[in-house]
Amino acid sequence: MRTTKFTSPLEWSRSRYQPPLPKVLRGSTVATEGESTTCVEHVDQIKKLFPKSFGKPIIKLAAEENKAKKKPLKVGIVLSGGPAPGGHNVIVGLYRFLKQHHRESQLIGFKGGLIGVVKNDFIEIDSEKCTNSFNLGGFHMLGTGRDKIDSEEKKEATRITAVKQNLNGLVIIGGDDSNTNAAVVCEDFLKHEIPCQVIGVPKTIDGDLQNEYIETSFGFDTATKVYSELIGNIMMDCLSSRKYWHFVRLMGRSASHIALECTLQTHPNLLLVGEYVEKKKVKFIQIVNMIADIICKRFEKGNKKYGVVIIPEGLILFIPDFKQLLDRIDEMFGSNKKKTDWKAEDLVKYLEEKKDKESQVLFKELPKGISSQLLLTRDPHGNVDVSKIETGKLLKWSVRKILRRRAKQIQEENSLSKRYFNNWSCMTHFFGYEGRCGFPSNFDCNYCNALGHTAGHLLAHGKTGVMAVVRNLTDPVEKWVCSGIPITAMLNMEKRLATWRPVIRKTLVDLKGRPYKTMLRRSNEWGLNDYYRSLGPIQFEGFNANSICKTLMLNQSGNDTEDDEEYGSSSDEEDEEEEDLK
Amino acid sequence: MRTTKFTSPLEWSRSRYQPPLPKVLRGSTVATEGESTTCVEHVDQIKKLFPKSFGKPIIKLAAEENKAKKKPLKVGIVLSGGPAPGGHNVIVGLYRFLKQHHRESQLIGFKGGLIGVVKNDFIEIDSEKCTNSFNLGGFHMLGTGRDKIDSEEKKEATRITAVKQNLNGLVIIGGDDSNTNAAVVCEDFLKHEIPCQVIGVPKTIDGDLQNEYIETSFGFDTATKVYSELIGNIMMDCLSSRKYWHFVRLMGRSASHIALECTLQTHPNLLLVGEYVEKKKVKFIQIVNMIADIICKRFEKGNKKYGVVIIPEGLILFIPDFKQLLDRIDEMFGSNKKKTDWKAEDLVKYLEEKKDKESQVLFKELPKGISSQLLLTRDPHGNVDVSKIETGKLLKWSVRKILRRRAKQIQEENSLSKRYFNNWSCMTHFFGYEGRCGFPSNFDCNYCNALGHTAGHLLAHGKTGVMAVVRNLTDPVEKWVCSGIPITAMLNMEKRLATWRPVIRKTLVDLKGRPYKTMLRRSNEWGLNDYYRSLGPIQFEGFNANSICKTLMLNQSGNDTEDDEEYGSSSDEEDEEEEDLK
Repeated sequence: MRTTKFTSPLEWSRSRYQPPLPKVLRGSTVATEGESTTCVEHVDQIKKLFPKSFGKPIIKLAAEENKAKKKPLKVGIVLSGGPAPGGHNVIVGLYRFLKQHHRESQLIGFKGGLIGVVKNDFIEIDSEKCTNSFNLGGFHMLGTGRDKIDSEEKKEATRITAVKQNLNGLVIIGGDDSNTNAAVVCEDFLKHEIPCQVIGVPKTIDGDLQNEYIETSFGFDTATKVYSELIGNIMMDCLSSRKYWHFVRLMGRSASHIALECTLQTHPNLLLVGEYVEKKKVKFIQIVNMIADIICKRFEKGNKKYGVVIIPEGLILFIPDFKQLLDRIDEMFGSNKKKTDWKAEDLVKYLEEKKDKESQVLFKELPKGISSQLLLTRDPHGNVDVSKIETGKLLKWSVRKILRRRAKQIQEENSLSKRYFNNWSCMTHFFGYEGRCGFPSNFDCNYCNALGHTAGHLLAHGKTGVMAVVRNLTDPVEKWVCSGIPITAMLNMEKRLATWRPVIRKTLVDLKGRPYKTMLRRSNEWGLNDYYRSLGPIQFEGFNANSICKTLMLNQSGNDTEDDEEYGSSSDEEDEEEEDLK
Repeated sequence: MRTTKFTSPLEWSRSRYQPPLPKVLRGSTVATEGESTTCVEHVDQIKKLFPKSFGKPIIKLAAEENKAKKKPLKVGIVLSGGPAPGGHNVIVGLYRFLKQHHRESQLIGFKGGLIGVVKNDFIEIDSEKCTNSFNLGGFHMLGTGRDKIDSEEKKEATRITAVKQNLNGLVIIGGDDSNTNAAVVCEDFLKHEIPCQVIGVPKTIDGDLQNEYIETSFGFDTATKVYSELIGNIMMDCLSSRKYWHFVRLMGRSASHIALECTLQTHPNLLLVGEYVEKKKVKFIQIVNMIADIICKRFEKGNKKYGVVIIPEGLILFIPDFKQLLDRIDEMFGSNKKKTDWKAEDLVKYLEEKKDKESQVLFKELPKGISSQLLLTRDPHGNVDVSKIETGKLLKWSVRKILRRRAKQIQEENSLSKRYFNNWSCMTHFFGYEGRCGFPSNFDCNYCNALGHTAGHLLAHGKTGVMAVVRNLTDPVEKWVCSGIPITAMLNMEKRLATWRPVIRKTLVDLKGRPYKTMLRRSNEWGLNDYYRSLGPIQFEGFNANSICKTLMLNQSGNDTEDDEEYGSSSDEEDEEEEDLK
């Protein structure tokens, strides 16, 4: 919805970048059916809920001259959920495919998320709009939103839009929730015999839309590079100023993928992984002590008054005693739905009534500012709005308390440790919005362009209820493999707001997976030493402009081929350089 | 003090970048004396304080074969104050000059700021250290610190270091305070006939070390580009999500240069300029209303629920009633220096005693979290530690209050405005540490390399008490003009902690200057429209890799030659592209 053209020189120059296409997508394709699919769990329920679309086969695209007579297609596309770098390239990729397919094809974009489909609120996508947003970040061409097509009224309105617009297809770009919704809409169209195919595209910076079919969702690569740039800068500040600890909280409510990727990239002194905390039932005070321990060790062993801790946004939801406290709050909210101004006293009373000693103790230990934040409004889904809870500060204040307690236990009045523990300095940061709309990395530009083309091919082959999937992403682009995976294959049943619903299962950090294990193997040396790694700003040209995030490398290639020493110059080279100077 | 080599591919590739040298510095130079200098104000006092170094002439460097026999030089260098991108290049530039000058020359680096000079705590700088940090951000080669050589004991220790090390020169890289200190050390050396020359180098990301001699301090260009990248990303998020306001606070305690430069780069909806607020005596509640007004206007005229406000770090010190409140707090602190745990009640009582109605009213209006922050510890200089006061949140909470008050005045129950004002959403950000150690832009790499060489030439010519200054920075590098300016020429007397001291006068934003006026001229259209500008990450190669910040362009060239439309593609080009696709 931005009307101006390029606002900066880099926007202009990026719009000229032409992502290479996978070989398979360079001409016409045929679609072959692979093995049939089932779903992740709860087969009977899912089958019942998706009678028309369940169990369909995987669709494989192969390059082949396709002599079938081509008809123009009319397709609608929509961006759903939080922005992720590369969304525009999916749109442009699809547009370009459609125009190649038949010059009379049409692409319309629904505005402001799925509500735009319901309301039939759209714009025509033309060549100019594509040129003005190709390879650029943001979702501003169409806007986005968090609405779902989740009621009978909205479904009916969506059918009306499809018929009125005479759509051959609807492409929904979104995360797990939005793609689940794509499956629901597809089933509804099939049930009512609406001749509009539905294709999903896997988007989310969080990295949790990843499974046996999807290697990575788009946006993850760019967002983690933006956050890693900032973390690297802060680390260099640590080494320069040598007096602050920095607690950096990173977006990612459900899963710690972003935090883990940024850790693999930058080597902070400590990463708190939500999934580990949950599995090992690590309590709040244990986490605080874990941080305090590393602070003490670094000071006592290396006289280091600085360090970096990475905290995933949703950490506190993984902490069992904290989670229990939050559940109690939810319960309390539920006990009187009309009341909106809950106070700390109310909660103290409620916990007393419930005889929940553990929560009482925890709530009392919390810094005041935080305890009031816990009672703030919840998000539209009815979950606690974790992003409003300042986990960084919560931990900072709690760690300070512990350090002062430790200082008291030191007898010697002039002890350096005593003085340091009493005067420990810490800065907190939260990075989220800074990366969701960054200029997409070359990887995300290429990936999204391929996703858009893949969606187009699947539409042209008459497929529906499938997600556009591009694989072998760690290979050169030309070797990428493109397919359509039935969305129902990724579903299971989960309880949301007291109701069981079909949803795509989020993939959390696998504690047995290579990315986590790689981090674990090095966590001790990263903790005590300063093996900080400074990535710098994303580069679009030159050496390393096509680098791929480490999570993907480790998951797919089995190892991280980038050897930190590789680009260190040999000492011979240096000697030569010195000679030049003399 | 980082021991590892390149930690990332970009560090490696940047270390290979060879900044071009100004023509004048490519071979040997002669130094000619220009006009004599005086000082900014308080001539008599400054003259008295600097009897040996006052009134010296400007030193101009010119390329000329210099047949004088060259002796090896031994030089010490030190980084002082907050880190700024490019510091390493000053060191490497100087090192390279010294080695060219005479291969037996030596450079040592004092560790951890000026205290390293006092303690004679140093490292030898060699070719390897230079290669490993050339064109890289941070001050980690030596570390930095905020100590000053400000007592007789420290001065004596400094003299001892100079003699012990047999130094020909000491180069102090720092901001206004550190360069003032360089003048003090120089005078002290001259007084005691220590044969060690002192050269200053102008560093600070804040941009306030700029005057008739200095076009810009190093680091400002890079830091503002890093912040502008993040602001641009947030703006694209605004246009995509369309539901949040973002209050972005930017580092810069005394002056609003950073905030102004980022505004010229990104076109936010509102910039609060500290210098304007001070001059016009804008009260706190007026500022809150100013923000609320633009929020209301954008919603009512364009149904826009989003926007970006830029806030300079030190804003509240410029707000007269807020300043008065802070002064009262300082007074209260001073009334009992032993007491450290001041409470809100103490202040309320104190203001009552002083019959300061205005401060009482303001303090009562402040959100609780903020009023307690005001009573936190102060910085080492004894100033209120402005960076600890969360101005962004202070404004957010205060604006929310005003908006709810306005909502109440709307009679119509179903009014969209009423609903919006009650549910206004806002995120706050503070960017500071994220930019101080970024990879220096090509401009800062080139500038700092030239500054290092200039410092070397000035030393070789036997000059002391001068700052290395490079000018004509908006011209191509080869045309840059290099000189040495007596630091005393920039001094005046200022009251610091109740004592009059000689200091370099900080340059605040000039309300009659071109940068401010350019912003002012466009502020209305930027306020109501979405003329957001997304710069993207700093690029080191390709189109626009050598761009220069707008403040410098406007101040020096008189205009900002970069025309936003220039890089917009012509429609012809687009038609061609469309044809290609069909």
